[in-house]
Amino acid sequence: MSKLQSLFSWTKSPLIVNAPMGGFAGPSLATEVSLHGGFGFIGSGFSLKQIEEHLGEAHSILKTQGFSGRTGTLAIGIGFLLFYHKLEEVAPLIEAYQPAAVWLFAAHDLDDYSTWAKEIRRVCPHTTIWVQVGSVADAITVAENAEPDVLVAQGADAGGHGLEQGAGIISFVPELVKKLSTLDLKKKPLLFAAGGIADGRGVAAALTLGAEGAVMGTRFLCSQEVTVPALYQQAVLKASDGGQSTVRGRVFDQLKGPNIWPMLYDGRSVVSESYTDWKSGLSVEQIQSRHAEAIKLPDGGFGASAGKGRAAIWAGTGVGLVNDVQKAGDIVESVRQEAREALDKARQSLGL
Amino acid sequence: MSKLQSLFSWTKSPLIVNAPMGGFAGPSLATEVSLHGGFGFIGSGFSLKQIEEHLGEAHSILKTQGFSGRTGTLAIGIGFLLFYHKLEEVAPLIEAYQPAAVWLFAAHDLDDYSTWAKEIRRVCPHTTIWVQVGSVADAITVAENAEPDVLVAQGADAGGHGLEQGAGIISFVPELVKKLSTLDLKKKPLLFAAGGIADGRGVAAALTLGAEGAVMGTRFLCSQEVTVPALYQQAVLKASDGGQSTVRGRVFDQLKGPNIWPMLYDGRSVVSESYTDWKSGLSVEQIQSRHAEAIKLPDGGFGASAGKGRAAIWAGTGVGLVNDVQKAGDIVESVRQEAREALDKARQSLGL
Repeated sequence: MSKLQSLFSWTKSPLIVNAPMGGFAGPSLATEVSLHGGFGFIGSGFSLKQIEEHLGEAHSILKTQGFSGRTGTLAIGIGFLLFYHKLEEVAPLIEAYQPAAVWLFAAHDLDDYSTWAKEIRRVCPHTTIWVQVGSVADAITVAENAEPDVLVAQGADAGGHGLEQGAGIISFVPELVKKLSTLDLKKKPLLFAAGGIADGRGVAAALTLGAEGAVMGTRFLCSQEVTVPALYQQAVLKASDGGQSTVRGRVFDQLKGPNIWPMLYDGRSVVSESYTDWKSGLSVEQIQSRHAEAIKLPDGGFGASAGKGRAAIWAGTGVGLVNDVQKAGDIVESVRQEAREALDKARQSLGL
Repeated sequence: MSKLQSLFSWTKSPLIVNAPMGGFAGPSLATEVSLHGGFGFIGSGFSLKQIEEHLGEAHSILKTQGFSGRTGTLAIGIGFLLFYHKLEEVAPLIEAYQPAAVWLFAAHDLDDYSTWAKEIRRVCPHTTIWVQVGSVADAITVAENAEPDVLVAQGADAGGHGLEQGAGIISFVPELVKKLSTLDLKKKPLLFAAGGIADGRGVAAALTLGAEGAVMGTRFLCSQEVTVPALYQQAVLKASDGGQSTVRGRVFDQLKGPNIWPMLYDGRSVVSESYTDWKSGLSVEQIQSRHAEAIKLPDGGFGASAGKGRAAIWAGTGVGLVNDVQKAGDIVESVRQEAREALDKARQSLGL
């Protein structure tokens, strides 16, 4: 039995994970992904009450289906933003619901990952610890100190938040694989790739790069189970040529007020009028004021046509590969199948 | 026989190409790559006389080895920067030396690719036309109008010049493959991937993404045959964590004077003091003056330690995968082998 299957008994290869998109990835999405052999994640919003409700709903759905993870864990995970969420508030929920994974991201200090990992393991020894990193240096520090079960290597193509400066997974993942192989770690983490993966070809690429699982965010923004505003989802569906229609920037975190993210982070959004205003030198105050007006409009500031909105529409460079709304289970199964075909096709092209 | 082999009879799968790095990729590198089953490219510097000498040298080397491409073409290619080189000066050299490929890049106007392609085909019908693009939109326009034999899809991880805004190949290549498959093109181009590929894992990933060949630049900066200053090469060898140690910027094109590149382009270099000065708000004039002083130093401005130089050191996010200087032929052969192994390993991980 592979390490993946021994840890996550219900999953199938290649392992497809939905990113814990805060506010968007709720219990319906997470359970649907897990029920189809993927690894489903809830992304915590900013309300502790909602986090508890989401875990409760996921518990009910999976219990009804008689579905559970290793040693009775809840066969989904949940993500937390360490700069925002409070360990002492979150730990009792982990203890109560025993999720199969907790995904840690965006700490002010790398030591925070160790603190969280230790406490979560204390309250629920069977919960696996996943840490998302954006550089080789961070990955090594985290692997040595927090001893995560899974490292998620997030490349610069990812939608939403990540390190402002970074590489795509095409070089980040193999460099990290190479570096990890030289270390004498007490616990060798599994390595998953995230950022720009939106179809089976991308998943197959992640595997050849040396990752053991693949995370998709943007693709699941266009699942039936995601909880995003309809016009947000339409903007993602409409966007194509992902390197041109999306862009990284800090301005997206300033639209509603001061940026609360740690200093080294920014986020990738669909290019919007807020961004073009920022590029042309408009002050943050002016951009905020225009944004405040725009979100009162019938389109909620998401824009009637691509690039014309003012609200942030977090999405990765894979937007051009996302062309319709599917059931999350169908996404997981079809992408898994496409990945196998992409590997076979690549080998055939070599005459193997 | 595959389309690749019918066009480029001496090459082996997977096809490894060295990027036509201007001033760095000369006849020794190009011929060594081709002689080992790859596709070698000369990168044109700014002197027409040198371009002719380089083609002459490549011709001599390959003739001595009794080595030629389809219908007697010179079994290497040569790259030109369309905003700089003049078609009327270049065409007679193409006619005289009949290279197997001409690689076109950085036109001010997309129509220029068609003009060049037409004239090159007129003077040498057997020369294949390669065009490097950085967006799906550009790729489609070029495919429809210039009808290239090869489209090189360059992702944002690439070292040196490219579109300022773009995606990594993880999403760019599959989106382009999907888009091209919907078009009724008179001539369907082969699709090669570039940007962040520095080892066999990256090459295997390029193939699963749907590319038919893989281009490496940074890796060949550390070949024995490349013509870069020793301290430049050492800076590349020393750099690791490629998303952190390299960065895209326009300031690198302003160090010696006005930026001559077309408006939409910038370049990726090793992070240097020139860049950190620019980030901290120093004027271009001050940065230029500090650069002018630095290049008089014994280290030529390339810096005694990583990040401490002032000169541009064009390199991609794959720098961390480049750890020693090898013969270009050994790079081609070992990467080809690694790519096959990476595909096999990925399939095995799925139990295939």
